[in-house]
Amino acid sequence: MNARLRLAPPPGRFIATYRISASDERQAMERARALCVEQTVEFPPELLPPGPARETVPGRVEGLWQKGNGEYDAVLSYDEESAAGELTQLLNILFGNSSLRMGIVLRSFQLSPRLASAFPGPRLGRRGLRRSLGVPRRPLLCTVLKPMGLSAAELAAQAESFALGGVDIVKDDHGLTDQPYAPFRQRVELCAAAVARVNAQTGRNCLYFANVTAPFHRVLERARFARDVGAGGLLLAPGLVGLDTMRHLAQDDSLGLPIMSHPAMLGSFMLSPRHGIAPHALLGQISRLAGADACIFPAHNGRLPFSRRTCRRVAWGTEVPMGHIDTIFPVAAGGVHLDRLEDIMQVMGPQVALLIGGDLHRDPRGLVEASRRFLGIVQGHVPRRHGSAEKRLSGS
Amino acid sequence: MNARLRLAPPPGRFIATYRISASDERQAMERARALCVEQTVEFPPELLPPGPARETVPGRVEGLWQKGNGEYDAVLSYDEESAAGELTQLLNILFGNSSLRMGIVLRSFQLSPRLASAFPGPRLGRRGLRRSLGVPRRPLLCTVLKPMGLSAAELAAQAESFALGGVDIVKDDHGLTDQPYAPFRQRVELCAAAVARVNAQTGRNCLYFANVTAPFHRVLERARFARDVGAGGLLLAPGLVGLDTMRHLAQDDSLGLPIMSHPAMLGSFMLSPRHGIAPHALLGQISRLAGADACIFPAHNGRLPFSRRTCRRVAWGTEVPMGHIDTIFPVAAGGVHLDRLEDIMQVMGPQVALLIGGDLHRDPRGLVEASRRFLGIVQGHVPRRHGSAEKRLSGS
Repeated sequence: MNARLRLAPPPGRFIATYRISASDERQAMERARALCVEQTVEFPPELLPPGPARETVPGRVEGLWQKGNGEYDAVLSYDEESAAGELTQLLNILFGNSSLRMGIVLRSFQLSPRLASAFPGPRLGRRGLRRSLGVPRRPLLCTVLKPMGLSAAELAAQAESFALGGVDIVKDDHGLTDQPYAPFRQRVELCAAAVARVNAQTGRNCLYFANVTAPFHRVLERARFARDVGAGGLLLAPGLVGLDTMRHLAQDDSLGLPIMSHPAMLGSFMLSPRHGIAPHALLGQISRLAGADACIFPAHNGRLPFSRRTCRRVAWGTEVPMGHIDTIFPVAAGGVHLDRLEDIMQVMGPQVALLIGGDLHRDPRGLVEASRRFLGIVQGHVPRRHGSAEKRLSGS
Repeated sequence: MNARLRLAPPPGRFIATYRISASDERQAMERARALCVEQTVEFPPELLPPGPARETVPGRVEGLWQKGNGEYDAVLSYDEESAAGELTQLLNILFGNSSLRMGIVLRSFQLSPRLASAFPGPRLGRRGLRRSLGVPRRPLLCTVLKPMGLSAAELAAQAESFALGGVDIVKDDHGLTDQPYAPFRQRVELCAAAVARVNAQTGRNCLYFANVTAPFHRVLERARFARDVGAGGLLLAPGLVGLDTMRHLAQDDSLGLPIMSHPAMLGSFMLSPRHGIAPHALLGQISRLAGADACIFPAHNGRLPFSRRTCRRVAWGTEVPMGHIDTIFPVAAGGVHLDRLEDIMQVMGPQVALLIGGDLHRDPRGLVEASRRFLGIVQGHVPRRHGSAEKRLSGS
């Protein structure tokens, strides 16, 4: 089993690829087999009773090959019925107990058609979001309302300036929830109204994404309020509220709003080369399953940097074929500066959203002019490389 | 600021202790100050406008001391209003963006009385759970219904045997959700009934904990069903559904059920000495804030082992004074064998729950006898050390 294969899921099963640390192939196979048990039956294999518990439920090693440096890639398959059509249980099978073990990274996965059909995916996806914004080709421009501590009126004034300056998406900082400085309802109502006023003036369709990261019993209530007062989208940190909460909001036709995902609390899965869920899978594939239309990741030249290669892997995860599940925008963020945009666009290509927060506040001419400069840089960008994220990745 | 202090939160603020990797004290202080910004305003400090955004919202370094080996402990304080009384936002401030950065571990925290009052904590806590089970002193006995793939009737037969043999808590495996092998309603109804029948016979009060780890829109529905058919508690994996989902279930008086927390998907926060949330804080303190009455952790002699010292740190987290927030049970689990129980009881002391799964199935006499043996070992245990987890910790 040394040849690298492009494996498809066997009938009735879905597959996942793990990178396993091991001293040799024999140990790698032992670990892969232990993973088959750990992620499913969690039971002494020799004691498994006849029937599905022994025949179909345990994971199966479908392929194993060396990657060099004590690392092996193992493809495991799992019974689609074990996931019960639930994102929570699917995630549990893919990585639940393994989160407690070093030397295992979930790299990617491929669902069976029947299991995939349980997840509609993003509401708008890349094309839908571009259509809604009226931005057919160039990277999207995003910014943030902050800092926490400003009043709702001050944040709404910022939103107005950003929209006037030509930003496409203005989102709440993910730390703005329902603080007394700027209570949720007041803030969202004022910000949505400010952006709507500007849109009526400019004829553009800037979207305001309201942060609905909130306690369990408040998420839906806040999302509905945001829709009622005209917010154009929702911001959510699934690491704080649960990935399935995002899936639920994305599927709610009565809301009908696109979602941007924030990685707060998700980073711990992605920092170690020997443990976790690869950014490709977590920010790319899983975000799409969970219904995000755009997913924030830390840009390679920002404050909490991923490597260039990891950024390209995220981009590839946002567009790798996943059946009916649409492509989404990777959103480069985390201390991005205007003078580093060119570099990001070279790394990521045109299918990217660029998020600048604090740096727009440095312009002494104010937020409108800073936003115009932001737009100018992106419009003036001449892409030097074309093609898919996969192509850029293989060239990196 | 080198002296180790037992700091109390300044008025209107809560505090958190982080272990920071740094080459010297100056760099440690720089990193601590960066953390103050990253976790709150996320904004260039020199551009912060007057008012709360500059005065009270940013974190403050209250103390810093060297721990040796390029490690420093920093105590930061945060404005209690920033947390908005929300567990989601509190977790975001404590660790949200820092999850994306190496060299930072959240070690512990202390809320202000006003912020703590937003969180009732566990419904029963240690004493309440002991009273409910009728087990005043010894460690609690827990087991699991598994493997996935069995029918509801087969799982209920297991539950009956375990209850007959004298186990205190019989829980669903956390991977049992709503699979076609054993659909949720059928399984929970049969298992609850089986345990109730045995209780009527024995006069004891074995509790069946039904797994309600489920998609967002199903969690409450399943919890209510479990209550309606007589389940004695709920099992939940907050790493899959969100910690605040657990808090919501714990506060729901119409449910009135104790909760056991499972660490699936939480491990990635706890594996690195240089990154994450220490088990003391995550499985101990945060589980209590989020309303767990018992929290599963990987025993030091099991399949996914924590060190002895880490296990003691977890125990200390489950009982460290947190104002009105009750103590809870640490539940030693993960491949625990009957012949290793003595060792766990020595490490953890009597305030522990012992969870054995697969190993009970090895007894050729069957599950009833295996459970009796389990009870016999625990009843026959003579504790050699007494006192609190903190005392055992300082002796380790």
